[in-house]
Amino acid sequence: MTSSSQEMLNKNYLFESEQALHDDVEGQVMQMFASGDRVNSLEKKIDEITERISQDFLSSIDSNTNIDLDFILENFSDSKIPVQPTNFESYLKYIDNNVVAHSIHTSSPRFIGHMTSALPSFVRPLAKLMTAMNQNAVKIETAKALSFCEREALAMLHRQIYNFSDSFYTQHIQNNLSTLGILVSGGTVANITALWCARNAALGPKDGFLGVEKEGLAAALDFYGYKGAVIIGSDLMHYSFDKAADLMGIGIHSLIRIPTDGNNRVNLQLLRQTVMDCCQQNLLIIAIIGVAGTTDSGGVDSLKEIAEIAQQANTHFHVDAAWGGPLIFSEQYRYKLAGIEKADSVTIDGHKQLYLPMGIGMVFFRDPYLASSIEKQASYTMRKGSFDLGKRALEGSRPAMALLLHAGLKLIGLKGYEFLINEGIRKTQYMAACISEMPEFELLAEPDTNLLIYRYIPEQFRSHAAKRQLTKIDNQVINKFNEYLQKTQRQIGNTFISRTVKKNVNYGNEIPVVAMRAVIANPLTTEEDINAVLKDQIQIAAKISI
Amino acid sequence: MTSSSQEMLNKNYLFESEQALHDDVEGQVMQMFASGDRVNSLEKKIDEITERISQDFLSSIDSNTNIDLDFILENFSDSKIPVQPTNFESYLKYIDNNVVAHSIHTSSPRFIGHMTSALPSFVRPLAKLMTAMNQNAVKIETAKALSFCEREALAMLHRQIYNFSDSFYTQHIQNNLSTLGILVSGGTVANITALWCARNAALGPKDGFLGVEKEGLAAALDFYGYKGAVIIGSDLMHYSFDKAADLMGIGIHSLIRIPTDGNNRVNLQLLRQTVMDCCQQNLLIIAIIGVAGTTDSGGVDSLKEIAEIAQQANTHFHVDAAWGGPLIFSEQYRYKLAGIEKADSVTIDGHKQLYLPMGIGMVFFRDPYLASSIEKQASYTMRKGSFDLGKRALEGSRPAMALLLHAGLKLIGLKGYEFLINEGIRKTQYMAACISEMPEFELLAEPDTNLLIYRYIPEQFRSHAAKRQLTKIDNQVINKFNEYLQKTQRQIGNTFISRTVKKNVNYGNEIPVVAMRAVIANPLTTEEDINAVLKDQIQIAAKISI
Repeated sequence: MTSSSQEMLNKNYLFESEQALHDDVEGQVMQMFASGDRVNSLEKKIDEITERISQDFLSSIDSNTNIDLDFILENFSDSKIPVQPTNFESYLKYIDNNVVAHSIHTSSPRFIGHMTSALPSFVRPLAKLMTAMNQNAVKIETAKALSFCEREALAMLHRQIYNFSDSFYTQHIQNNLSTLGILVSGGTVANITALWCARNAALGPKDGFLGVEKEGLAAALDFYGYKGAVIIGSDLMHYSFDKAADLMGIGIHSLIRIPTDGNNRVNLQLLRQTVMDCCQQNLLIIAIIGVAGTTDSGGVDSLKEIAEIAQQANTHFHVDAAWGGPLIFSEQYRYKLAGIEKADSVTIDGHKQLYLPMGIGMVFFRDPYLASSIEKQASYTMRKGSFDLGKRALEGSRPAMALLLHAGLKLIGLKGYEFLINEGIRKTQYMAACISEMPEFELLAEPDTNLLIYRYIPEQFRSHAAKRQLTKIDNQVINKFNEYLQKTQRQIGNTFISRTVKKNVNYGNEIPVVAMRAVIANPLTTEEDINAVLKDQIQIAAKISI
Repeated sequence: MTSSSQEMLNKNYLFESEQALHDDVEGQVMQMFASGDRVNSLEKKIDEITERISQDFLSSIDSNTNIDLDFILENFSDSKIPVQPTNFESYLKYIDNNVVAHSIHTSSPRFIGHMTSALPSFVRPLAKLMTAMNQNAVKIETAKALSFCEREALAMLHRQIYNFSDSFYTQHIQNNLSTLGILVSGGTVANITALWCARNAALGPKDGFLGVEKEGLAAALDFYGYKGAVIIGSDLMHYSFDKAADLMGIGIHSLIRIPTDGNNRVNLQLLRQTVMDCCQQNLLIIAIIGVAGTTDSGGVDSLKEIAEIAQQANTHFHVDAAWGGPLIFSEQYRYKLAGIEKADSVTIDGHKQLYLPMGIGMVFFRDPYLASSIEKQASYTMRKGSFDLGKRALEGSRPAMALLLHAGLKLIGLKGYEFLINEGIRKTQYMAACISEMPEFELLAEPDTNLLIYRYIPEQFRSHAAKRQLTKIDNQVINKFNEYLQKTQRQIGNTFISRTVKKNVNYGNEIPVVAMRAVIANPLTTEEDINAVLKDQIQIAAKISI
């Protein structure tokens, strides 16, 4: 700092006039960085404003504002960075009016259409603490205690999944050779990481061949005598597996999607047959995927049976439990995930049913040494033998989200999470019961967990629908109606339900069915809110003419 | 919510005794989620505590506590999630004493060894606001206005790099077919994304062949008649390129690392030769990488010349400017990045020299349609024609970090960033001058930007060092000395400098040189702090016996 900028620091730039700011960029910037009492007044003032904005936002009942996207677009059409620093007060006002006002009230009890929810209030101050600490979890030298805190949090969830012995955890929890789990930005990176490990382990170094990591996929398949490589799962697998297959060079056509039964679970017989076919064709099965909570309807594959199939084929078994993983907290519903403990790797998202902020994906490994297959080093960091968490990870620098994960597990606890999971399922069953009783709606499948798919049936189709006599054309009309209804409801913004397209529901494969998709994961959602959402749809539908 | 939990909500659970909490998990959990006045008292109390912890942490001058890792390890050896929710007060005390106390003071003016720094204070309240809003940037339905805010922020930086016409930005800034940039979790994902796009574009669909995305790498190389695929850059490329080459299936041996000259820039003649060799061998060059700010010493490749080489070879030119990108803000130093505007893709990290919190990586594209090569869709979201940002991205669900990026660009402004960049370089030159004048140290290279590598020379070697007469053995002893010095300094924790291993410095290739690595990016670091860090090293060194 030059002595002149030191002087500037002594001045008080707090929300001064634009002109004064323009004249003294250095002083203003230095004030932004200063710590201690002087800055407290600046940070405090901003904090007061953002706090008021936050609380207004959080207390909204409606899900959204009724505003045209075109109007928003126009507000964000300036590609020029301002030359001078912008005045704080005017910027915060701008953000409030243009960003916050037209953001989605993901915490609203009537926003029950996506996998976002209200969060426990402790995450907000902790997010600020995390930002203040600004640790970089990539290495010990920038995240000392936090690295071990992260390992502990991951071990806690590992234990909840696999329940190995005390001595197992004593040996591995803080052992720099072991990787019980990796904290990543989200489920997609978790799934990609799991498959990356599986591929590299299956095609590792051997007899002078240096492995797929060094020599590439084509050479590795050649060396091991495979004709190709595939990944197998259900047709309801998340699209992150498409990304993985593309990225890893096997191609999306080698991602084999097995049809699901009416219950949204992979057809086991077809799965067995496909695995046998692949073996006969001399294709490497990099992994078989089990889904624990499909994104589109919450269905859970028969994990136990898939585990057996994978074991027989001697292939990696990965469970994508990004959504459904936290069912392991519920004594009542844990049985639905039976077999997850046999998985070689498991994805769970903290920002879904662990009720933590966005940016917490995780992958867990049965074998604490599996992730060695992707280990990288660099001379300036990530040294061998160190505890640097970036050594075995897809990502490099990353935030201390572990702080929030650790806090969630400790502050909410097993019983707290059990309550949240059970409540979601209870309310989903309530909603399913309502829908079944209401002539306006058709329940498209009994909910497996806390996702629910249904649709609105316009009056003239109700008698045929009840008798399952809708024609293809009828269904097409109903599809258009539901799509329009969902879009209108979203646009008006009082309540929100998402939509998806289902193939295997009641009407066979020949016609896709547009479905309303409810996700009941918000602890603030009451039965009354569910009634209000359905009533909102009925009222909107009444105004739609076919 | 059941009516009983509604009742519980009316009670006041604020920091009650453990026993009371155990008896009523539901009530306590519901209180965590409640919004409005009632919760304010809980959130407020936590906020007060974390605020005190934050301010204590931020005001630390030392870089670290002098504590044994083994001691920390023991504190994080509990793999069991508590059954009951933990009391807030005791948990926060625990976090303060065990995590915060032994975390790294990345904001300390004397922590000048890594690419972390003090942050402007406005990011802390904004991080809390971001967490309160909990938008999921993957799609419009969970991040309405924010998606457009993100596009605007990315367009602003795109313009700063490429400086296309007004009409270009009017056309693309809010066009759902265009992707000027992608916000990702960090530079590693940015680099991987850029190469993924480059690979898919080079091996795209053609004449009935469906492209590498669908048919895989082996089939694509075969179809296009290539013998293999490579990525070419300098031997100082970040290790994320190893990850990319491994993950993408080309293998790390196909990541060709060209030696650098003494100035840490890729040897252009060798690069040209390698490119020619690859073409002759019928290898697809997926991309040529230029580094703008090497991680180990801040060197910037000759981007203009590399751009020409890439253009002649008709290959993708990617610039990894994760660290050095913000030099574009400096009128005085922008010339160092000349040629970056010719890059097909550019990586910049917001959490490095844009002084924003961890978790803001970005990749920018010259061609707004390039990222279409990685586009994916799903029936429940990411619909074609939508503004859903997750369509063309490696990641899926992700946080609203755009809010912080947008704020940084607006609140700091061009002139503010210019000041920060210039100051970093000015102070680095000051430190280089000090080191040159001090007999205890040897400057290992003139700094290109604001990274500095040097080493301590124990007294008995100083005369030989001055005459450049150190033997191989001498250097090995000095290496050991410097490694021990760096570790000891880190352990004591008053100040911090990182270390790396250099090959091409003064003493030729035959012996690697252990180097101290200073990163001068903290606006709070004064010349006095730099003096203190060097003095600390001299004092520690005096106590080390060889």
